[in-house]
Amino acid sequence: MNKNYLLTPGPTPVPASVSLEMAKPIIHHRTVGYEKIYAEVRDGLKYLFQTKEEVLILSSSGTGAMDAAVANTLSAGDTALVIAGGKFGERWGEICKAYNVNVISIDVKWGKAVNPDDIARSLQDNPDIKAVFTTFSETSTGVRHDIKTIADIVSKHKNTILVVDGITAVGVMEMPMDKWGLDVVVTGSQKALMMPPGLGLIALSQKAWKMAEQSNLPKYYLNLQKEKKCQSKNQSAYTPAISLIIALREALRMIKQDGLAQVFNRHTKLAKATRAAVSALGLRLLAPESPSEALTAVISPNGVDVSLLRGILSKKYGVTIAGGQGHLKGKIFRLAHIGYMNTFDVIIAISALEMTLKELGYPLELGAGVRVAEEILIQYS
Amino acid sequence: MNKNYLLTPGPTPVPASVSLEMAKPIIHHRTVGYEKIYAEVRDGLKYLFQTKEEVLILSSSGTGAMDAAVANTLSAGDTALVIAGGKFGERWGEICKAYNVNVISIDVKWGKAVNPDDIARSLQDNPDIKAVFTTFSETSTGVRHDIKTIADIVSKHKNTILVVDGITAVGVMEMPMDKWGLDVVVTGSQKALMMPPGLGLIALSQKAWKMAEQSNLPKYYLNLQKEKKCQSKNQSAYTPAISLIIALREALRMIKQDGLAQVFNRHTKLAKATRAAVSALGLRLLAPESPSEALTAVISPNGVDVSLLRGILSKKYGVTIAGGQGHLKGKIFRLAHIGYMNTFDVIIAISALEMTLKELGYPLELGAGVRVAEEILIQYS
Repeated sequence: MNKNYLLTPGPTPVPASVSLEMAKPIIHHRTVGYEKIYAEVRDGLKYLFQTKEEVLILSSSGTGAMDAAVANTLSAGDTALVIAGGKFGERWGEICKAYNVNVISIDVKWGKAVNPDDIARSLQDNPDIKAVFTTFSETSTGVRHDIKTIADIVSKHKNTILVVDGITAVGVMEMPMDKWGLDVVVTGSQKALMMPPGLGLIALSQKAWKMAEQSNLPKYYLNLQKEKKCQSKNQSAYTPAISLIIALREALRMIKQDGLAQVFNRHTKLAKATRAAVSALGLRLLAPESPSEALTAVISPNGVDVSLLRGILSKKYGVTIAGGQGHLKGKIFRLAHIGYMNTFDVIIAISALEMTLKELGYPLELGAGVRVAEEILIQYS
Repeated sequence: MNKNYLLTPGPTPVPASVSLEMAKPIIHHRTVGYEKIYAEVRDGLKYLFQTKEEVLILSSSGTGAMDAAVANTLSAGDTALVIAGGKFGERWGEICKAYNVNVISIDVKWGKAVNPDDIARSLQDNPDIKAVFTTFSETSTGVRHDIKTIADIVSKHKNTILVVDGITAVGVMEMPMDKWGLDVVVTGSQKALMMPPGLGLIALSQKAWKMAEQSNLPKYYLNLQKEKKCQSKNQSAYTPAISLIIALREALRMIKQDGLAQVFNRHTKLAKATRAAVSALGLRLLAPESPSEALTAVISPNGVDVSLLRGILSKKYGVTIAGGQGHLKGKIFRLAHIGYMNTFDVIIAISALEMTLKELGYPLELGAGVRVAEEILIQYS
């Protein structure tokens, strides 16, 4: 009779109505029925990304879409500016290097947001930078980078595109692709989309598509120009992950029914409540200055072993949370509030955390975090 | 109350017990529970491929795994021998060219199998050939190429690997990877594995792994060395398609329960019955000399419009079959007998075909094909 609670920043919980779509008999993709579903999914994704451009669907993880972003816009020997500052920011640099793209890196301290002025300066000093690779919500640290300001800076350089890893940002925080002038936006299915992993999503601006025409990096499976041509006919270049795409229609329908404003509002509410509750317990946030609304990274207090903490949460309470990554392993833990989560997912997270910390000898008043969370949650309808 | 029958060579029908796995609550992949499942899947895949090597799982279509086969074994400027003769054979050439690999092509007439002597000759004339790219079951024509003989030829060249597209062959026809000395074998989830599309599978021999160490083609998402390292710890390089992998465990369990010998036997039975029934109706096979056991390609008789035929099959009888691809579009149709199919899938295919051809004015005796199919099917237990 164990009940399990998945409170990680990906995979995230999948609503039953989405899961059940995948249990239906499989259909063929070269049929009118499938093409109708695909057309709905295309519309839903444009709504989600707030773009009139095509949002391409790859059978891949989010990293596959990140790879495609590099391989389709740049050429060997090009120079890219990478904003590091976390595991996923650094991944952009790794991908660029794999493709023989020169990398200039701005190394932000993990837990801090990049100073947009540093990007402006770097672009001025290095006029050959073809692309700026950024992360809206850095999942490894819970930091939110100021993409809107960065977009204003990059848009002044007519030969430079802004590429945004939106993997834990799309469907979490306002990031209107067209309005802000983002050139490439990437996400994955297992985050705010409330889906299992297996789909990578990527949209390109007209400026980015022009660069794609010049790109000479080798690609076949991840060739976005071919994918775009097929998608305009409601098909994919290669056999699509049919069951996931049909489930995606349902997830997008749910998002549209709530409306993006409400979706963003819900994430803000959960994030605020989590941060306040954690702080009320005397714990320190890793990214207090510029936190993502997708997850809250908490510095583990002295004397509390993160793996012990996660072990008790999991075994005694059925609650799965994330630990730290890279050099933050063992130093932080991460509470997610992204996707199919609401009021009581925060209450469960904070309650489980209180009981577990208490058991581990950390001094706290049971219920103190939950009380503060409730004080915030009650303010939202 | 329409009942639908998917009789295409991919996607193929998914057993309910496999579909239902995907409807279960999602779990996190960085957990002991998931790693246990992954270990079972790894074992099952080794059994299926008949190899002691690791069978790597990519979140991709089968084409993603084909791309990985090229990108991980070759270097720019290398020379590859490609056996064309169908859409999928030609795809190997397209991928090689995308990566600046020189292609020598043996252009086999669509519907015919390659003469292995031509491969032996080409290898002798071009000692710089690093890899021979082949297709065991060419899905676009229903041809079976003689991979065993080809493997004997290629294995005599110690600097050349044999790469086999086994996408509609693995789990259909005997193709023991280690025993035959196949260097790279690729398949996809939506074929004999009775799964939805979304997973690409690939295994490399020690000879191929040695080449992988030398390969300088750029890759990141499809980097197999990184994937292998992670898989040895029951993890993937990037977030895996969790729900599909959990379903795959069930599909592999079903295959193991039957046993590979029985699985191959079933495909042989269905293929024989289909070919005999189609011939009894006076129809001609595209590949009578060397047919794949996965599907039967039938030349559409004079006066029968393939799109009309497929339309009636679909709308009146709920039966989905495949048409022709490339220059065979409109000239052939393809009846699949691969994966989760058995006796009555063949009976349905032939019965629906008889009624539809009759309606289209093709002269036949109703039931004549079914009778011949039954005569074969009754012989098998």
